[in-house]
Amino acid sequence: METYQVDGARLARTIADLARIGATPKGGVKRITLTDLDRQGRDQFVAWARAAGLTVRVDGIGNVFARREGTDPGRAPVMVGSHLDTQPSGGRYDGAYGVMAGLEVIRRMNDLDLRTRAPIEVVAWTNEEGSRFAPTMMGSGVFAGVYQTDEMLARRDVEGVSVGEALRAIGYQGDASAGPVGAYFEAHIEQGPILEQTSTTIGAVTGALGQRWFDVVITGQDSHAGPTPMDMRRDALLAASRLVIEVNRVARGYPDNARATVGHLRVTPNSRNVVPGRVDMTLDVRCATDATLSAMVDDLLASAKRIESECRTSIEIEPVVYFPPSAFAPQLVENVRGAAAALGLSCRDIVSGAAHDAVYLARVAPTAMVFVPCEGGLSHNELENASDTDLAAGASVLMTAMMQAAEVVG
Amino acid sequence: METYQVDGARLARTIADLARIGATPKGGVKRITLTDLDRQGRDQFVAWARAAGLTVRVDGIGNVFARREGTDPGRAPVMVGSHLDTQPSGGRYDGAYGVMAGLEVIRRMNDLDLRTRAPIEVVAWTNEEGSRFAPTMMGSGVFAGVYQTDEMLARRDVEGVSVGEALRAIGYQGDASAGPVGAYFEAHIEQGPILEQTSTTIGAVTGALGQRWFDVVITGQDSHAGPTPMDMRRDALLAASRLVIEVNRVARGYPDNARATVGHLRVTPNSRNVVPGRVDMTLDVRCATDATLSAMVDDLLASAKRIESECRTSIEIEPVVYFPPSAFAPQLVENVRGAAAALGLSCRDIVSGAAHDAVYLARVAPTAMVFVPCEGGLSHNELENASDTDLAAGASVLMTAMMQAAEVVG
Repeated sequence: METYQVDGARLARTIADLARIGATPKGGVKRITLTDLDRQGRDQFVAWARAAGLTVRVDGIGNVFARREGTDPGRAPVMVGSHLDTQPSGGRYDGAYGVMAGLEVIRRMNDLDLRTRAPIEVVAWTNEEGSRFAPTMMGSGVFAGVYQTDEMLARRDVEGVSVGEALRAIGYQGDASAGPVGAYFEAHIEQGPILEQTSTTIGAVTGALGQRWFDVVITGQDSHAGPTPMDMRRDALLAASRLVIEVNRVARGYPDNARATVGHLRVTPNSRNVVPGRVDMTLDVRCATDATLSAMVDDLLASAKRIESECRTSIEIEPVVYFPPSAFAPQLVENVRGAAAALGLSCRDIVSGAAHDAVYLARVAPTAMVFVPCEGGLSHNELENASDTDLAAGASVLMTAMMQAAEVVG
Repeated sequence: METYQVDGARLARTIADLARIGATPKGGVKRITLTDLDRQGRDQFVAWARAAGLTVRVDGIGNVFARREGTDPGRAPVMVGSHLDTQPSGGRYDGAYGVMAGLEVIRRMNDLDLRTRAPIEVVAWTNEEGSRFAPTMMGSGVFAGVYQTDEMLARRDVEGVSVGEALRAIGYQGDASAGPVGAYFEAHIEQGPILEQTSTTIGAVTGALGQRWFDVVITGQDSHAGPTPMDMRRDALLAASRLVIEVNRVARGYPDNARATVGHLRVTPNSRNVVPGRVDMTLDVRCATDATLSAMVDDLLASAKRIESECRTSIEIEPVVYFPPSAFAPQLVENVRGAAAALGLSCRDIVSGAAHDAVYLARVAPTAMVFVPCEGGLSHNELENASDTDLAAGASVLMTAMMQAAEVVG
């Protein structure tokens, strides 16, 4: 396998330059989707893309495509990208790394004067984070046909501003149409601890966990902590605590990278000497296979039924989100593994616990992702960090795998 | 045993009249300590007391004593009372019932032209609720020598107003001195479910549970719910949930009316897809004997140590309040039982799970309490309710027991 090495110093400089737009005092980035800072980030990307000889198009939901033509007019593009928007207290790498790595691949191709049969397109997807406008992964969702453009343009933020209004205000509503995609690649920091803790440089992402989210309301009866004997209580927090423990038991007891989390829990009335009458909590269940995901949920619902009766409470569980598990293209994942091996980099298979734009792209194109370690697994945080060496290694793996997919002709 | 029956209709009218002062739309009462509404409540009580021929004195912390002389100048008074202040969303009976029942005893004595060897004093203690000024049971605490008057007068509310300023503003700082008390009686709604659920009219209160309160901080590490495998998590909410279950196990496993509660729990960052990094919670442990109370706390601390290490979190537990258990005077409690029996009322021994002014009075005088049922065990709530029949029954038991202690001479 022919290998390619990107210019790691240039990549690091480009990431650092982009991070100035929306920089926060603590070293993070706040570049919320479809704000003026997002426009500045997009303008910077477009300027860099044009300087690298790319042709820029924008579609109806604001996704930006920067194209380097191939030698074969009949070939669908090999696409690479991620997103430029951040969380309100975001980091420098989440999303930005994937777009900048794609740009660095183009620059390195230019350095080497490489031609490919397939065109290459670097893409920046609109509103991956979903922190201003729901849902998350809006741009890639529209591109993949999961959402309708018109429906998404009508979504409003808490101020009442619609996606369409915000897009036009920053000048990023275009008319490019979506065509077939030959292959899609996305590089991303892991946002978890596995690569760092196993001293591995490259994660060959085999797919993304399916997710089922629920809202849970537990209703008991609030009563005075002093005068109410233990056997006359209907303690909603006791029931909630038993459910939290069941959630943990189920996640540990199932295969296929099963995970389950109660991240949010609110007690009512939440007073020191009152037995809690109500608990509102969330439930996030993830797994790599749909069969196991369903079995986990069934197990949890049965546990909740048992707890409900034993604690004399009512437990209502409402589903709010379902993402099916997604498997990436085996051949492209194998190319990522092969690229890492050929470059002499440590590599392990990994499943993405979070959703990414690649999850939607996988519905319409052969897809692969490359993960690199991030410090302490920390992300969605201003302190998010990754080493320049690892970022460069990830981009070299990305380039090597992409060149194979796009077929270098000279 | 000579029995006495109060005028239940008059008692009910008096309670209803008092409840107009600070009445809330939902039928409750908001008469926060040392506000102008508290002054109006005190003024009303003083007017009724004077109309019944009583002499009124006020001490340095605002406790109001209304005295009916006895025939024996050497005898310390038999005291009866409770408090007139309420919670911000309080009910009509908590505290007010005890003072109005005392007043009704006096009125009934006047009806019957009864003389007693010992003087009778009806007392309204200042700031039992503690909702504006900490600590709770301030007036009875000062009277019993638990707190110094000057120190309490300097306590401030969230607006910066001191107890002394507020007392003078409503004209209720006096100079009466505390003398010895022959016996102290307090009638109160149960504020719990036991009497109602066992269809019992009278609770002969044998004492009050000791209380140990703690603040607990559990620190783990917040991380993304998706990418963080179960075995790499340091989930503070999982540790908290295990501790809640241990709290319940311990309370159920010990004798002497053991109770334990986690009433307040706060999760950080409390986001649906983030493994919680921190939990702040409270712990309220109660028991009728100090030895068992200590054993419960030791058991819980050992459990916390185990959870701390198994969940890879740190658990800090800080004591914030300690009330020792208090035992009421066996002879007076026996008089309450005897009065109920002589009046043909169902009666059972009960331990007060909450603290009352009687708990401090028990440190300086033989003390007893009479509980009557309240609807659903509900208290500190605008919907607090009790039946006129039960309230009258409790006051008749109170009067019968008091007349025995004060010795009727004609």
